[in-house]
Amino acid sequence: MQTIQPTDERFLSDFAAMSKNGATPGGGVERQAASEGDVKNRAWFTGVLEGFGAEVGFDEIGNQYGLFELVPGAPYVAVGSHLDSQPLAGRFDGAYGVLAGAHAAARVAAKAKSGELTPRFNLAVVNWFNEEGSRFAPSMMGSSVFTGFLDLGVAREATDLQGVTAGEAIDAAKWAPLIDAPKVATYAEIHVEQGRELEDNGNQIGLVTATWGASKFAATVRGEQGHTGSTMMRDRRDALFGASLVIAGVRRLTEEFEEGQLQASVSQLTLEPNSPVTIAREVRFNVDLRSPSAQVLEKARARVDEIVAAASDEAKVDVDLELTHEWALNPYPEAGVELARTCAEELGLSHQEIFTVAGHDSTNMKEHYPTVMLFIPSVDGISHNEAEYTTDEDCLTGLALLTRVVEELAVGKLAPDER
Amino acid sequence: MQTIQPTDERFLSDFAAMSKNGATPGGGVERQAASEGDVKNRAWFTGVLEGFGAEVGFDEIGNQYGLFELVPGAPYVAVGSHLDSQPLAGRFDGAYGVLAGAHAAARVAAKAKSGELTPRFNLAVVNWFNEEGSRFAPSMMGSSVFTGFLDLGVAREATDLQGVTAGEAIDAAKWAPLIDAPKVATYAEIHVEQGRELEDNGNQIGLVTATWGASKFAATVRGEQGHTGSTMMRDRRDALFGASLVIAGVRRLTEEFEEGQLQASVSQLTLEPNSPVTIAREVRFNVDLRSPSAQVLEKARARVDEIVAAASDEAKVDVDLELTHEWALNPYPEAGVELARTCAEELGLSHQEIFTVAGHDSTNMKEHYPTVMLFIPSVDGISHNEAEYTTDEDCLTGLALLTRVVEELAVGKLAPDER
Repeated sequence: MQTIQPTDERFLSDFAAMSKNGATPGGGVERQAASEGDVKNRAWFTGVLEGFGAEVGFDEIGNQYGLFELVPGAPYVAVGSHLDSQPLAGRFDGAYGVLAGAHAAARVAAKAKSGELTPRFNLAVVNWFNEEGSRFAPSMMGSSVFTGFLDLGVAREATDLQGVTAGEAIDAAKWAPLIDAPKVATYAEIHVEQGRELEDNGNQIGLVTATWGASKFAATVRGEQGHTGSTMMRDRRDALFGASLVIAGVRRLTEEFEEGQLQASVSQLTLEPNSPVTIAREVRFNVDLRSPSAQVLEKARARVDEIVAAASDEAKVDVDLELTHEWALNPYPEAGVELARTCAEELGLSHQEIFTVAGHDSTNMKEHYPTVMLFIPSVDGISHNEAEYTTDEDCLTGLALLTRVVEELAVGKLAPDER
Repeated sequence: MQTIQPTDERFLSDFAAMSKNGATPGGGVERQAASEGDVKNRAWFTGVLEGFGAEVGFDEIGNQYGLFELVPGAPYVAVGSHLDSQPLAGRFDGAYGVLAGAHAAARVAAKAKSGELTPRFNLAVVNWFNEEGSRFAPSMMGSSVFTGFLDLGVAREATDLQGVTAGEAIDAAKWAPLIDAPKVATYAEIHVEQGRELEDNGNQIGLVTATWGASKFAATVRGEQGHTGSTMMRDRRDALFGASLVIAGVRRLTEEFEEGQLQASVSQLTLEPNSPVTIAREVRFNVDLRSPSAQVLEKARARVDEIVAAASDEAKVDVDLELTHEWALNPYPEAGVELARTCAEELGLSHQEIFTVAGHDSTNMKEHYPTVMLFIPSVDGISHNEAEYTTDEDCLTGLALLTRVVEELAVGKLAPDER
């Protein structure tokens, strides 16, 4: 039974309450997948869903569902994002979209119950497990298992840096009850932009039309262990020196392209051994290339090979680059974009089409289900950082639009005719 | 009572037996301070010392002593090095010198007992605690506490990467009995060269005349955490990019000087956070500059400041360099070098004067005690590596010379008159 009213005031007070779960002294949150902060926040979110009259359950990869059954036996319109965070992260990323999804679904369910709207589908709020991938690789784990892109058993075997598997962490969290994942008809997600394009253009809403193309590599630099003092420079095969040449080269590569055409990063680096008086024999790290242009991405990959070859020569090391993820510029379904545009115009919101550089759970969902993906602005585009911020006004504008989209999906928009 | 004869054959079989303690599949050893391998090896070494009739004891910082009392109440000639190792290290570094010290002392003690030699001093074999510093900083911990350069309480508070303190690790090892450190008159140490100068010159023995000058820094690069995908390149303050510019710059700096004039390294690097999709906000590492020339070292330090300033500019990060260790070209006492030269000539050994790039426990001891420091060759100069190797012949030649030096010290050579 719905006992809590999903008002704007309630949304803002819920968001403030949520932000205390796993809060950090710097004003952010630390809620990596199945960590103490994430477990606390999910328990809190169960209360929110139940207050709205939803039934809560979890699947075997730890996705959390809040189910509003309006049409017994019908499939579900799913709406959600992820509550997990990076280390020392901001309060909005993922968490905003999950809470907005809960409030939007509660609003639509209330309209259905009062007879203002005749739904064709049920509603499912989803909090996908481990979207960030900071504790367990790969990222977007929960939605990848849901959509069949990742095997459940493989996902549960992923280990964190302490050797704990995702399966062990999920079991330890004792999330209950365990349910079968709901059958989904259509999907909607809202997220903060994590960039500054909406802000720069003064727009309230981004209609996401595509994900940037990406190539991600696991790099391994192999040199030879030695003494930092006594091993003569000419004899050294220093893996950390080799790695530094690749890191600097990959970053400077972005300057060879027009601004906004190539994002290139190195992250998550480990050394063996990591000792104060010893030359590292091996360094491992991730290389991440992203572009809205297939040509740029292809050219960048060729240039990375040249950078690696030059680094190998200069540092006398071996460098392996293993391609771990690759996707071309990946469009969102046009019908979803058009539905979102129509809804935004009805509500009089300023909007634009936009690409997403980052991946989202909707990146998986759109491959199987008609999907709508929405952005609201991020102040200064700050992301994966305690200083991440979006104004209350933008949060509420996004909630209003998401609610309108979920209403349309609930009555059958975007659904294939055979359903 | 001496039950084991310190023959050459026994030395080689002892060395082979020792190399099984903490052995690695790659033919090296892993015996970081107070680790399982180190604890096992020290227990084994107690047996060696007792077999030679020495009394074994440990002081509060975990230095292990084997005492041959020949002249009741007299001070000790100390001879030793360290049994601890770097991760995945070679079998010789430190361990050779400790075992050679035990055999040399046993040989001299036997001569004293048979009346062939009339000692003025007692003999103490020393296995210094944590010379490597790979588990607990700083390096040369045991000899630094012994000589008063480092406070015992401070040393015992040093933590490893798991948060275990040196004091806790020493207490857990239950090394007993606890004794007062012996009063030392003079000191001798033998070590593998960790370089290829002796090999290149075809000499059997190095008479160490000085330690290279060194400047060591703890570097901290501070940027801003962000999303590796969506944070636009122009907005990034990537601490790992800044670090890579410093690492590459420091290494290339060595090419600005004549070969052999500057050694420069970066080691032990950590990132915060170390996550696959997040730009690091902070990177910490060690910078290590060494030179036989004070002018070169001074010039290199100025150039490092320029490298750091350029890296700060390009990566938009802040870089702090904190000087943690600094020593000028540091001579060994001339009388010790002359004694070693005389002994080497008596034995007909080819020899040369040599500098040490690496620090040794003798670097501390020579500040308070007349000291002799000897090197034997390292094949290809390989050090801090499982492939480290010195021939049996060179090991035995070094043992013969060390025995001769300890004989001379035992009868009073180098000792100040007042003792």
